[in-house]
Amino acid sequence: MAVRVDLNISLDGFATTTDQTPDNPMGDDWSRLVADYVATRTFWARVLHDTSGEGTTGVDDSYAKAYFDEVGAEIMGAGMFGLHNRGDDPDWKGWWGDEPPFRCPVFVLTHTAPRPSIDMLGGTTFHFLSTDPRTALDEALEASGGGDVRIGGGATVVRDYLAAGLVDQLHVAIVPILLGRWIRLWDDLRGFEAGYDVTTQSAESGVTHLTFRR
Amino acid sequence: MAVRVDLNISLDGFATTTDQTPDNPMGDDWSRLVADYVATRTFWARVLHDTSGEGTTGVDDSYAKAYFDEVGAEIMGAGMFGLHNRGDDPDWKGWWGDEPPFRCPVFVLTHTAPRPSIDMLGGTTFHFLSTDPRTALDEALEASGGGDVRIGGGATVVRDYLAAGLVDQLHVAIVPILLGRWIRLWDDLRGFEAGYDVTTQSAESGVTHLTFRR
Repeated sequence: MAVRVDLNISLDGFATTTDQTPDNPMGDDWSRLVADYVATRTFWARVLHDTSGEGTTGVDDSYAKAYFDEVGAEIMGAGMFGLHNRGDDPDWKGWWGDEPPFRCPVFVLTHTAPRPSIDMLGGTTFHFLSTDPRTALDEALEASGGGDVRIGGGATVVRDYLAAGLVDQLHVAIVPILLGRWIRLWDDLRGFEAGYDVTTQSAESGVTHLTFRR
Repeated sequence: MAVRVDLNISLDGFATTTDQTPDNPMGDDWSRLVADYVATRTFWARVLHDTSGEGTTGVDDSYAKAYFDEVGAEIMGAGMFGLHNRGDDPDWKGWWGDEPPFRCPVFVLTHTAPRPSIDMLGGTTFHFLSTDPRTALDEALEASGGGDVRIGGGATVVRDYLAAGLVDQLHVAIVPILLGRWIRLWDDLRGFEAGYDVTTQSAESGVTHLTFRR
C-alpha cells in the first residue's frame, strides 16, 4: 500500500498550463506534455478504449502500463476532475467520459459545496471531499482494498502531498520542452530527495522517466 | 565552430548555490551538483592532473571527455573565474590553480575595471572584457582558431547567451537533487527547444544527460 505520484512535467518543472479553456480543457501546452504518453498502446487501450493494437510499445509504454498497476484508489484536485470550468452544473460528471480509466474510487478535493458521489461505468466512483490532505489520504487508503493510492494531480495537489512527506514513490516523465509559466512542481521542495532512492531511464521519445522510491 | 554550453543543474533547474564562502568557494550544493563529474577519470586527469587511472569510466566520463573536445575558446562570468570574492586583489589569478584545465583563451566578463590578461601554465590565457554577450562571442570566435566556443558559466551568463539565441549546443547534466534556491537556468526561456534536436541518456550515477543541438 504505497502512496504514488505519476506526473508529466516540462524540463523547467511545469506541470500545468495557462491556456486551458472550456473548449480545450487540457490546453495546448498540456497536450505537448502528455503527447508521448498519449501515443502509447496502453493509453489507447485503457483511456481511449481502442484495443486494435495502435500505439507505441517502448519505454514510455512500459511506464504507462505501470501507471495503472496496483492502484486501488486515486486522489485528485477539483481542476483535474473538471470542476473549475463547470462546477456550477450539478449534472456535470467531469471530463473523463462515461467510462473513466481509473476503475477504482477517486476522491476529488474541492473547496466548494459537497456533491453526491457519482458511479461511472467501469468501476470508477467519484467522491467529493473538503478536507486536508492527510485526512483525504486516510480515506483513500481505507477504500483502496489494499492497493496503492495515487495522488493524480494537478501539480498543486501533488506538491502538497510531497511537501507533507506523504508520498512513497514519485515518478515524473520529464518532457524536453520549456513551458516557462504556471505551476512549478518543484517549488519549496529543497532536499526532497533525502530518504529516497532514484532511478532514471531515457525513452526513445526523448522523455526521461525519473523515479524516487523509499 | 559551434557555440556550446555544458552545465550541471539540479532537477529543479538550479545551477549555482547560495552557500559560497571564501573558504569554500564552490559551496556544498555545488559540490553535490558536480560530484559525479568530479568522480570521472577525465576530471581526475584533466583537472586534477592525476593520470594514475583513478575515476569512473561510464556514461558520465564519456560526457566529461566530450567536454574538452574541440573547444578553442571559453567565455565565463566573473564569478566563475573567482573575481567576486577577491576582485580587489590585483595579483589574484582566479581559483582554477596554476594550470587551469581550459588550455585555450578564456574571456572573463566583468563589470569592474579592466585587468591585464594573465598567461597561465598549460595554454590558458585569461582575458577580461566589459562588453555585451554578442561582442564577447565575436572576440572568442576570432580567438578560437576554428574550434568551438564554450559558454562556461555561471548560470546567469549561460542564460543570457541562450536567451539571445547564440548557443548551438546545450548539454545539461541533470542531477536528481532539489536545491530549491538561487539562480534558475530555465527562467524566461519558454519555447527554447524550437529549432533544436534533443537527445537524452541516463548515466549509471542517476544523472541524466540532455543535449539540445541545432
